[in-house]
Amino acid sequence: MINAVGRDIPEKVLKDLNMKPFAGTYARNGEEYKKAAPTVRCWMDPKESKMVDSIHDVLVKCGLRDGMTLSFHHHFREGDYIVNMVMEEVHKMGVKDITICASSLGKAHDPIVPMIEDGTITNIQSSGVRGKIGEAISTGKLKGYAIMRSHGGRVRAIESGDVHIDIAFIGAPTADEYGNLRAVGGKSDCGVLSYAYVDAQYADKVVAITDTLVPYPNIPASISQVNVDYVIVVDEIGNPAKIATGAAKPTTDVRKLMMAEYCTKFVINTPYFKDGFSYQTGVGGASIASTISLGKIMKERGIKMGLGLGGIAGPMCELLEQGLIEKLVDTQDFDLKAIQSITNNPNHIEITGSEYANPMNKGAYVNKLDFVILASLEVDTHFNCNVVVDSNGMVTGAQGGHPDTAAGAKCTIVIAPLLQGRTPAICTDVTTVTTPGETVDVVITDYGVAVNPARPDLLECAKAAKLPVKTIEELRDMAYAITGEPEPIKFGDRVVGVIEARDGTIIDVVRQIKDYEWD
Amino acid sequence: MINAVGRDIPEKVLKDLNMKPFAGTYARNGEEYKKAAPTVRCWMDPKESKMVDSIHDVLVKCGLRDGMTLSFHHHFREGDYIVNMVMEEVHKMGVKDITICASSLGKAHDPIVPMIEDGTITNIQSSGVRGKIGEAISTGKLKGYAIMRSHGGRVRAIESGDVHIDIAFIGAPTADEYGNLRAVGGKSDCGVLSYAYVDAQYADKVVAITDTLVPYPNIPASISQVNVDYVIVVDEIGNPAKIATGAAKPTTDVRKLMMAEYCTKFVINTPYFKDGFSYQTGVGGASIASTISLGKIMKERGIKMGLGLGGIAGPMCELLEQGLIEKLVDTQDFDLKAIQSITNNPNHIEITGSEYANPMNKGAYVNKLDFVILASLEVDTHFNCNVVVDSNGMVTGAQGGHPDTAAGAKCTIVIAPLLQGRTPAICTDVTTVTTPGETVDVVITDYGVAVNPARPDLLECAKAAKLPVKTIEELRDMAYAITGEPEPIKFGDRVVGVIEARDGTIIDVVRQIKDYEWD
Repeated sequence: MINAVGRDIPEKVLKDLNMKPFAGTYARNGEEYKKAAPTVRCWMDPKESKMVDSIHDVLVKCGLRDGMTLSFHHHFREGDYIVNMVMEEVHKMGVKDITICASSLGKAHDPIVPMIEDGTITNIQSSGVRGKIGEAISTGKLKGYAIMRSHGGRVRAIESGDVHIDIAFIGAPTADEYGNLRAVGGKSDCGVLSYAYVDAQYADKVVAITDTLVPYPNIPASISQVNVDYVIVVDEIGNPAKIATGAAKPTTDVRKLMMAEYCTKFVINTPYFKDGFSYQTGVGGASIASTISLGKIMKERGIKMGLGLGGIAGPMCELLEQGLIEKLVDTQDFDLKAIQSITNNPNHIEITGSEYANPMNKGAYVNKLDFVILASLEVDTHFNCNVVVDSNGMVTGAQGGHPDTAAGAKCTIVIAPLLQGRTPAICTDVTTVTTPGETVDVVITDYGVAVNPARPDLLECAKAAKLPVKTIEELRDMAYAITGEPEPIKFGDRVVGVIEARDGTIIDVVRQIKDYEWD
Repeated sequence: MINAVGRDIPEKVLKDLNMKPFAGTYARNGEEYKKAAPTVRCWMDPKESKMVDSIHDVLVKCGLRDGMTLSFHHHFREGDYIVNMVMEEVHKMGVKDITICASSLGKAHDPIVPMIEDGTITNIQSSGVRGKIGEAISTGKLKGYAIMRSHGGRVRAIESGDVHIDIAFIGAPTADEYGNLRAVGGKSDCGVLSYAYVDAQYADKVVAITDTLVPYPNIPASISQVNVDYVIVVDEIGNPAKIATGAAKPTTDVRKLMMAEYCTKFVINTPYFKDGFSYQTGVGGASIASTISLGKIMKERGIKMGLGLGGIAGPMCELLEQGLIEKLVDTQDFDLKAIQSITNNPNHIEITGSEYANPMNKGAYVNKLDFVILASLEVDTHFNCNVVVDSNGMVTGAQGGHPDTAAGAKCTIVIAPLLQGRTPAICTDVTTVTTPGETVDVVITDYGVAVNPARPDLLECAKAAKLPVKTIEELRDMAYAITGEPEPIKFGDRVVGVIEARDGTIIDVVRQIKDYEWD
């Protein structure tokens, strides 16, 4: 069945997953639905303890069995030890057919690939995957489907009951013995626990794992005792050096600096750039350079940002410190500066993943964005973006908040160099659609700026900013003129993964990579 | 059917309400149950506004109809305008058979009595009632049952689905246009919105009513935009003078000072009085005097409180300021000092009603109490307390957190003068059981101190403290010797209300008052 972005979603996949094809970004707006709910055990007797000695013991207490769904968060990023620690024990116990529902998975989790191969893990739900898990999925080793969800989409899936978590494992930089969890104050601080909040609310059993037990009460808590069943203390929950990076050096890449300049010029020439505006940006070199130059102009013109949103890195924290941002609202911290900022600055505030981006609650923060600055592996002539599958067809990225912020923001700007190495980033059709073109307003490349024809108002802004305005087709043609039109990737027939739109429909599928055949 | 505190609960009542008789404070510990969930409308389109012009319009938007359950919080206490404002409009619209589910109701709500009489309101669920609503209930004017729940019990009832809220009305000192609500920063600050949190989570429709609209985002929010459907601005949501009282003058009543001294002496002679202890107290004169004298001893001995809990008044905030409390954890503010403290002191922290006292979540703060100091209208020889029905049989008080803290604390101390005017406070059987005696450890009167025989350890502490130790029967006999044994109140047969134990069973019933008959 052809969906609203022109992708053919096989009937078998729709049936297997009981899902519908994507029908447009706002198609489900206003729908009513009954929220899901966990089955919980009440802790009424004050004499009971939540402390458990080992992961093995807690798995027994939680009644681990074949076919369960276990959940994890990714706030420790490439420094995470929790997923491997838990799955190793699950594997030892011989339990099979586990679904992993993670807010994201990375190279840190390469050690679980053998468990995919032997049927311990048969389904993966994640914002994305990298490294060997991506290869395992793309080469057909996962028995079930990999479901890739945006950060908002994952919360929606859990809150609506599309996925039910049996046991949530929450790595916590600090915990008290009754399960109040904080993201700061321990050996492996990660700043916030935003993405784990929904797991704590909706999982039947919730297990906190910490390496730093602190006196009761550990508050203000990111996750409260009222949602936690058990607390385990281990030696190390993560590798701090890989959880938070040091300060990123400002880019010196002239292409990135040029795109940053285009971006800033465009932003300040829109009517949304006024006192109290709201803004989110990524951590790419161009995004960061653009944020820094925007800050200078804000200072010159006496304009303050009312709301800075998102995964947060140092440069946004510096604007906050300089008094150029009223409130910095945070779901993930990328560097030490951000972790220090949320620990110390009362105007730097943690929110939950649902508050950030869930499209089916009563209104997420992304809905209030004026600007979002995003990156993309590919953008096509329909303005569709691909942030998950590389140009070899391998799953190697994550949706993150990309489709969520694009859908919410008044002005969605995608920065992409015309060429990613020898591959055109601007193309006729993206390999895989992860963010629908109807939500992408402006594409900024090092060869020019294209505005979505649906936004003639923004085209006028780009012209007023004296930017090198092109059509998206012109940009594509320039790219193809340099590299030649790329050969289509050869996929097999088997669908190994689906790209879930933030509203729970299928926007695209990912097929198994075909072994290379000589013509 | 006779329940675990010896009260006869009529079969008809059990059947009408589909409830079970009370079987003991911890009888339901460890039970598993599926939580309730609301039916929500998603707000996906960033262009939609939540602002509505009037209460009438919002009632129409929410689909108000006969038989619905509307909910309210009581953080504005006797200064609340919200209940009357909403119910006046409901009444005008001619809607009937409304259940009011309030965290509490007071004299401020006397104006709704005519709506009880004319069938607009047919059921009331509240922590308690005062004034004319109590009279209306006790004289049989309410068509259905009044259900009295503790603060924790109310959250349990909502989270478990025993009561389903159709529309929650949340008076908010400040709100932004997308529904982020705070308890401070407006014309009618109330410090916290703890008891309204569960309404926002579990009601199908959530309406915020404010008199102070502030710029977006109004954070850190007590109640988040993701749970709020509509925002209304009115002229005044409350009377600040009646929301928060000024500083209470220290009592000069010698009886109260004597009981305070007994209480302090007892506390410091228990093994629980050590660095890091946890403590909750009320706002009665003796409680406050005891807190002040306890503070002096803590300072002398270099002992700090780890956790101060509860409804908070000035004296606890002063201990926090003096560095004698690590964390002050708050669900309700009784005076201006407390509101100022939570606004300014980062160690004074708001929690939700569920975190405070819900017996059927994964562990409430009350479970971590070492001491709670409570008052009571009556205490009987089984140590049962009555805090709802006066000695004339009239409903005129509230359960509040009484049964919750008593069940949670390691040491529950009830302070009551031997006589309340000419009525014995220590009696053979309380008029109505609201807190079961098995959770009450020590009773302190101006004529002596009685310890529950179930706690021989605490009896030794009382003796070590050189307190005038009596049996509870001795105290009762002293009271009866002064006043004579009181005549039993003459009730009619009709049950007009039930006292719900915190676990959702019936601990006692309230019968209609009988007109006086000459013998």
